[in-house]
Amino acid sequence: MEQQDEQVGGLSHHGSSQDLGSPPISSFEPGESSQQEDGTVMRRSESYLPVPGEDKNLDGDFNGKTRNDESMPMKTLYASDGSLLHLPLGPYFSDGQRRVDYVLTYGIQKPSAIRRQSSKLSDNGYFHRLWRSLSSRSSRAPLQLKEDPEVAATEQQANYHEDDKRFKREEFEQNLQEMGLELEKDEGGKIAGIGFLKIHAPWAVLCREAEIMKLKMPTKQVYEVKQGSNLVEKIRLFIHKVTDPLHPKVGPKRPEDVKSLSLPFSKEKQHLFDLSDRDKFFDSKTRSSIVYEVLKRIRWTRPNYSLGITSLLANGVYTSAYPLHDGDIDGVTAEPNDRKLLFEEWASYSVFYKYQPIGLIRKYFGEKVGLYFAWLGVYTQMLIPAAIVGVIVFLYGCATVDDNIPSMEICDPRNNITMCPLCDSVCSYWKLETACGTARASHLFDNPATVFFSIFMALWAVLFMEHWKRRQMRLNYVWDLTDYGMEEEDHNRAEYELRVAEKTMRQDQGAAKDEKVKLTCTDRMPAYLTTVVMMSFMIFITFVIAFGVILYRISIKTALHLSTYPAARSNIRATVKTTAAIINVIVIIILDEIYASIARWLTTLEVPKTDKSFEERLIFKTFILKFVNAFTPIVYLAFFRGRLVGRPGKYLYVVGSYRMEECAHAGCLMELCIQLCITMLGKQLIQNNLFEIGIPKLKKLLRKRKSELTSKQEEELHKTLKRYEKDHVLGPFVGINPEYMEMIIQFGMVTLFVASFPLAPLFALLNNIIEIRLDAKKFVLELRRPIASKVKDIGIWYNLLRGLSKVAVIVNAFVIAFTSDFVPRLVYQYTYSPDGTMHGFVNHTLSYFNVSDFQNGTEPNPPNFNVKVCRYKDYREPPWSNTSYELSKEFWAILAVRLAFVIVFQNVVMLMSDFVDWLIPDIPKDISFQIHKEKLLMLDHFMKEEGRRRDNHNHDGYTSPSSARLLLHFH
Amino acid sequence: MEQQDEQVGGLSHHGSSQDLGSPPISSFEPGESSQQEDGTVMRRSESYLPVPGEDKNLDGDFNGKTRNDESMPMKTLYASDGSLLHLPLGPYFSDGQRRVDYVLTYGIQKPSAIRRQSSKLSDNGYFHRLWRSLSSRSSRAPLQLKEDPEVAATEQQANYHEDDKRFKREEFEQNLQEMGLELEKDEGGKIAGIGFLKIHAPWAVLCREAEIMKLKMPTKQVYEVKQGSNLVEKIRLFIHKVTDPLHPKVGPKRPEDVKSLSLPFSKEKQHLFDLSDRDKFFDSKTRSSIVYEVLKRIRWTRPNYSLGITSLLANGVYTSAYPLHDGDIDGVTAEPNDRKLLFEEWASYSVFYKYQPIGLIRKYFGEKVGLYFAWLGVYTQMLIPAAIVGVIVFLYGCATVDDNIPSMEICDPRNNITMCPLCDSVCSYWKLETACGTARASHLFDNPATVFFSIFMALWAVLFMEHWKRRQMRLNYVWDLTDYGMEEEDHNRAEYELRVAEKTMRQDQGAAKDEKVKLTCTDRMPAYLTTVVMMSFMIFITFVIAFGVILYRISIKTALHLSTYPAARSNIRATVKTTAAIINVIVIIILDEIYASIARWLTTLEVPKTDKSFEERLIFKTFILKFVNAFTPIVYLAFFRGRLVGRPGKYLYVVGSYRMEECAHAGCLMELCIQLCITMLGKQLIQNNLFEIGIPKLKKLLRKRKSELTSKQEEELHKTLKRYEKDHVLGPFVGINPEYMEMIIQFGMVTLFVASFPLAPLFALLNNIIEIRLDAKKFVLELRRPIASKVKDIGIWYNLLRGLSKVAVIVNAFVIAFTSDFVPRLVYQYTYSPDGTMHGFVNHTLSYFNVSDFQNGTEPNPPNFNVKVCRYKDYREPPWSNTSYELSKEFWAILAVRLAFVIVFQNVVMLMSDFVDWLIPDIPKDISFQIHKEKLLMLDHFMKEEGRRRDNHNHDGYTSPSSARLLLHFH
Repeated sequence: MEQQDEQVGGLSHHGSSQDLGSPPISSFEPGESSQQEDGTVMRRSESYLPVPGEDKNLDGDFNGKTRNDESMPMKTLYASDGSLLHLPLGPYFSDGQRRVDYVLTYGIQKPSAIRRQSSKLSDNGYFHRLWRSLSSRSSRAPLQLKEDPEVAATEQQANYHEDDKRFKREEFEQNLQEMGLELEKDEGGKIAGIGFLKIHAPWAVLCREAEIMKLKMPTKQVYEVKQGSNLVEKIRLFIHKVTDPLHPKVGPKRPEDVKSLSLPFSKEKQHLFDLSDRDKFFDSKTRSSIVYEVLKRIRWTRPNYSLGITSLLANGVYTSAYPLHDGDIDGVTAEPNDRKLLFEEWASYSVFYKYQPIGLIRKYFGEKVGLYFAWLGVYTQMLIPAAIVGVIVFLYGCATVDDNIPSMEICDPRNNITMCPLCDSVCSYWKLETACGTARASHLFDNPATVFFSIFMALWAVLFMEHWKRRQMRLNYVWDLTDYGMEEEDHNRAEYELRVAEKTMRQDQGAAKDEKVKLTCTDRMPAYLTTVVMMSFMIFITFVIAFGVILYRISIKTALHLSTYPAARSNIRATVKTTAAIINVIVIIILDEIYASIARWLTTLEVPKTDKSFEERLIFKTFILKFVNAFTPIVYLAFFRGRLVGRPGKYLYVVGSYRMEECAHAGCLMELCIQLCITMLGKQLIQNNLFEIGIPKLKKLLRKRKSELTSKQEEELHKTLKRYEKDHVLGPFVGINPEYMEMIIQFGMVTLFVASFPLAPLFALLNNIIEIRLDAKKFVLELRRPIASKVKDIGIWYNLLRGLSKVAVIVNAFVIAFTSDFVPRLVYQYTYSPDGTMHGFVNHTLSYFNVSDFQNGTEPNPPNFNVKVCRYKDYREPPWSNTSYELSKEFWAILAVRLAFVIVFQNVVMLMSDFVDWLIPDIPKDISFQIHKEKLLMLDHFMKEEGRRRDNHNHDGYTSPSSARLLLHFH
Repeated sequence: MEQQDEQVGGLSHHGSSQDLGSPPISSFEPGESSQQEDGTVMRRSESYLPVPGEDKNLDGDFNGKTRNDESMPMKTLYASDGSLLHLPLGPYFSDGQRRVDYVLTYGIQKPSAIRRQSSKLSDNGYFHRLWRSLSSRSSRAPLQLKEDPEVAATEQQANYHEDDKRFKREEFEQNLQEMGLELEKDEGGKIAGIGFLKIHAPWAVLCREAEIMKLKMPTKQVYEVKQGSNLVEKIRLFIHKVTDPLHPKVGPKRPEDVKSLSLPFSKEKQHLFDLSDRDKFFDSKTRSSIVYEVLKRIRWTRPNYSLGITSLLANGVYTSAYPLHDGDIDGVTAEPNDRKLLFEEWASYSVFYKYQPIGLIRKYFGEKVGLYFAWLGVYTQMLIPAAIVGVIVFLYGCATVDDNIPSMEICDPRNNITMCPLCDSVCSYWKLETACGTARASHLFDNPATVFFSIFMALWAVLFMEHWKRRQMRLNYVWDLTDYGMEEEDHNRAEYELRVAEKTMRQDQGAAKDEKVKLTCTDRMPAYLTTVVMMSFMIFITFVIAFGVILYRISIKTALHLSTYPAARSNIRATVKTTAAIINVIVIIILDEIYASIARWLTTLEVPKTDKSFEERLIFKTFILKFVNAFTPIVYLAFFRGRLVGRPGKYLYVVGSYRMEECAHAGCLMELCIQLCITMLGKQLIQNNLFEIGIPKLKKLLRKRKSELTSKQEEELHKTLKRYEKDHVLGPFVGINPEYMEMIIQFGMVTLFVASFPLAPLFALLNNIIEIRLDAKKFVLELRRPIASKVKDIGIWYNLLRGLSKVAVIVNAFVIAFTSDFVPRLVYQYTYSPDGTMHGFVNHTLSYFNVSDFQNGTEPNPPNFNVKVCRYKDYREPPWSNTSYELSKEFWAILAVRLAFVIVFQNVVMLMSDFVDWLIPDIPKDISFQIHKEKLLMLDHFMKEEGRRRDNHNHDGYTSPSSARLLLHFH
């Protein structure tokens, strides 16, 4: 302990140590803050430090009542525990007063733990080493310190590197202190080999950075949020009352219909803000993001290159960087905090039916995470009506299955239609009535209601987008982001900086120097080429695998036909279909994981300049690969299966003698349906359970087994760990893009082929209800707290959603026109049918084939001499026509109608979508009214202040009361 | 003169008269402004008034050199003219110092001129009168004072109204003065019956409002605008040098590669801005818009209702409101000013080849007008490549006309094909070779290059939109609008206020009062219904007229066939086509004018709340009506003509016995082409010349003839008119939406049917080159100066353009697939042709008809007994088939291919468009770099200032030099 305190003293720069030296309470004089316009007072208030009595509860502001009851006992608890008196487990410096806003960790050298990575590098120069450390980091194993067998031989070398790192750290930390941050080191913690650098941002720094970042903070002035006329208000209240049990109990600070006016924080206008408790004015999320903002700006600088915090992290100078969680969720020290509240009211399966506490999520994790969950919530909510309508459509299919004339005709044994064999020689002729079951089943998914449902879902997708836009706008208003401009992500990535530095070095040896060095297209060309080649290759692989599954299906089917077991033969179709679908799913899941890492690797190769660019490129690649991967088998089933068959006597063969698959009589829709069903269920079950629940559990188990401590001992240890040590154990936050990606692919499943599988929304809904809580648990329990990043919208994901819903329209048009029998039925009924009913439709769709026209060796073996003519599903001229077996006029007519249907469907739905888009304003009316009101308030406020200032000084010009009066008539 | 000065004194409030009383020069102490952070200094600097020596040239900043040379002589010129010594003609108050920033005019009562409008209203109440004055205003005749025959009887009544108005004016003006504005009245000017209220905004008001409006003003700090690497920079310079003669000579103030950092103006930070010349700091456009902003806020208030400036204008309390032009264009007093510069370098046909001085246009007219001309410029520029490619496509058609096998076959007399008659009984059989000319001509517009051109134009449209987005972004950056948020148009319209007031009165007599009164849907329902009915009716009218023209064509054709003059018969087609097209154009132009006023009337009925809403509703209605009007005949020709014909023996008849029109053999494309050509040329020539040049000239002429003065005398009078009197004579500015509308319809012509008329871009280009200068002349010479309105984009027009270019894709797909012979030719060549060439195509497209199958009375009279079988253009079974005259398999096959072509074309082009859209970043790279740089500079600046302030006060915390050093490494 003593040693640590010394170290703190040594690190603290003169400013803060001076502050610490003087009795803190004496420098605080209440009432001063409101006088800070006067320059002379500012000096004292800036060297302000919180008094000990004021910082007892800095963990954010939860329900006022609870706080007042429990905060004092908590304090007592610390004091009663002797060893913790001066060093509470909460997120504070060792003085127990200054809050730890950010933590950087670094490896410290112990005799027994020397980094292996530097062992074999002797004199390859500085950059080589940097590269090495970088690549070792990107391969995700930089933090584990491993025992090295060559310790003795490389100790000196290692020491040199350690010294180099320490030197960089020291210089960097000095820069931090120059920017006003206060630091404290802790190298003797319970986690061996890791040093912690705790960073605290004093009030002055917070103010300055808040002003630079133009942070909007709530002022003292509140105003009433009116929800429209009395009636609307009453309805709103009624709905709120009815849905009350669905709302999470996170206790709003103030009544919902009052909002405080937010203004960009400015030191000159401090008197406007409620600074009665300076420690709570900026909440923990804001404090840490402010510190992070400062960190990003500070660089370790040398003439030739300079390293920012990300580069330092990448080089292993620091090993990790994270802000602290607010507190524990359970255990003795579990005082009420936002994290606990989130755990209880959000990250738990038992509250699955409730709304999410989006405000609290945003308050704790920042806007980006908040928006993700808000989006997921809106999506899930919107899935409810879609699922209901989908179920109704499905039930309609069930109810009408017995009235369906085509399937009745198929099932009617009196029709006695002999079909041509489904495979060469080994298969025999078959009776159409054996396809009865399939025909009846496919009516469930192929009925007029499906067309309606496709249109419904296309409009649903538009409504969803619109609803989300409005929700986003509403959140922007509530979160005071309406004026927040597009912020450029201006922080270069470590890899980029390194590459630039390398290039600079190379050019220095060469010639010109005054031009700014940056990576050009030429530098990146090899990477781009690799990307293109790899992407094409991977897409090719996907196709090959899909084709392999097709071959599997064909060959197994033939093999089963060969087998003499009647049981095997009767279950051929179901068996083959199901196994093939399962194989597909497993392949998809495996490839998904592989593709994700390949996409990451390719993006790293490209050395994007900023994190934003990196993210976009990664998303783009991952999206393409995952999308192709997920949808290749489905697209094949929907559009190609059964179409490339040829005709009896002239079949199409692939890979030697495999005849391409035919569909069962009632269209391929049924198979598409099974495939979709298994893909969705399988992907969700396996990915959710295995990857998101199973593997982390397994990892934990393994870790536990490795450490020699019993679980009891570990728990004990955990209790004595300090906040930053506990958080260090958690997994690093890797962004929310994987979560988005998963949802987007699901959205694709729900919208793209909804015409063939009306139950998709239901499956998605069930999955998402679990998904929300699963993600929530992950964020609250298992990951380090993310740095709050401020965003206005969900960015590229919105565009992807939009693109998908556009593609969905055309895909559904094609599914209805070509995969389902909707159009042929319609054409038959209104053109060819003798009595205007569907009777005779089945006969109309089947062409005749003269069995004597079989190619040699393809006729059924043993031959059936009773059959002279067999039927097959196609529109071709009969054998007795002049142009026998050519496509018939009916074929062309129906094709024309199918195509016309696609054009009409696509354009009508697109027009309707655009119309809906145009009809619904992007900004909800009440919000635009509120924004307007807020602006007026701001103006009023401004004029009043102006007037007051005038009154204090002189009385010419306009007078303030009249200006105020004039303004109040403004609306 | 003396009398006027007294009046000024009487009006000026105590504040400003006190300012005037004290010697102005004494209150200005240079150097004080930079110390204004200290509250005590502020007092004096706020009562600052310009010194006489400083205001000699307030007309904006044109080329520095010219100003210095000529401003002094100008001053002298005033002095030398004795009568003008104290009252210069420039835009100043009578003291010759304070600039007139805005002018309100009102009618003043003279014994001989009493308003007629109040004559018949005796006791209908206040609102009735308001309504009356309002409606008389909207019928555009409120300002002319006419002699009234019933003067004596109503004099008292009129006096009452005049008093009422004067009373309102006085109160309103008092409110203006309370807000700090300075006023001067001029009721004895040269224009009888009109009083002028001149408004001047003193420095304090300008500062306050600039701060409220968050106006970004240039600071002293400039920074270099780098244009990328050396090579790029060199190329840019080279291009600039080559195109130098194309750039207007408007002399940039400073080198183009330096831009000053703009910051929102704030009194606290006055020292940052270059205030060396306070009168020029805010240019005339900014000053007037500031005054307008204040005017909008001030209201004439009574408990029950309050009237803003627009309501006062609508009620005739004021008759007009406008800011002043900068100066004269020619004549003796024509000192150099922005208006003159604009006239010389922009609003003149002699500079048609030059770029537009967009910066200057924006500086003079504001962002909205600037954006319109920038947009028009980009559009015109983009038309150049389109026109070139269009001409090339046309020339390709010309060059290949002799190699075109189908037209060769048609022209070949050896084929000797007898066609069925084109009309019943009076027409006879005809030889196909007589259609030779048409067939050859239509090849010019119907060849494979047309398909390419359609795709090209679809992509061109996307590129145009993208280019414009980037240009807009660039302008936003240059004009410092990047941070400018969406401003709500919050100013209620006069009609709306009145209706609300009426409703309030009604409700007051009833019950509830605490709720805010506003117009609900119920209030507007009658108007909405009227709109729907009227719109449907007008669209119906358009259709009826189009149908009428068709009937005209049919009947004239039949009549001409009947005539025995061979000359008449040979020219039948050309005559009919051309006259019909001309009739169409004339109808279109007439209806356009009628529809525009009906749309305006309908929108007024709806009583929209704000000007923005009014504008949007008006645009929406006008667009629909004008669009339907312009495109109905074209759509008919493209898609319906020749398709609803029936077949020989079973023709389709309309209105009794009129047979529907057939197309000439080579498709209707030729006729579509003629129609488009005549519509475009006709519309442009007539609308431009007649409406925009002719009618204003005519009006001027009439006005001149009315006034008894000779032109010499008038010129003399004009010279002695004061600035605000001269501007009063000009027409009021009515917005730029009509100009946009004209261009959008033209854009529709260029993109929608470009497949059938590749020369459309050329015509549009030629028109636009004139249009730009025509509009420019109008704005500079003939209209009052508009109030500068700040906008970031072209708003709804962008969406309309986008919508049009989307519709264009599908329309072009249909034109190529159905109107042109492209698809049948393709199908013939690759499917039916025996030798893979086009030989035999004509024969293939013609079906056979047995002349004995003619319905009674429809066979040619006298009958030609040599003809047993005649041919007609259709794909039908021959008479000898089982299913004679039914649509043949070829028909269905070709239809399927046509439809498939539409689907492929539409989706491929849309995909390509989206891809181009995605490929081109919306924000140009250099601009986003500059914006980023500007942000860094701002941050740097902020930190420095912070540091300086710190240095002045205390030295703890970070130190400024180090922070500056750290920041400079930032990028």
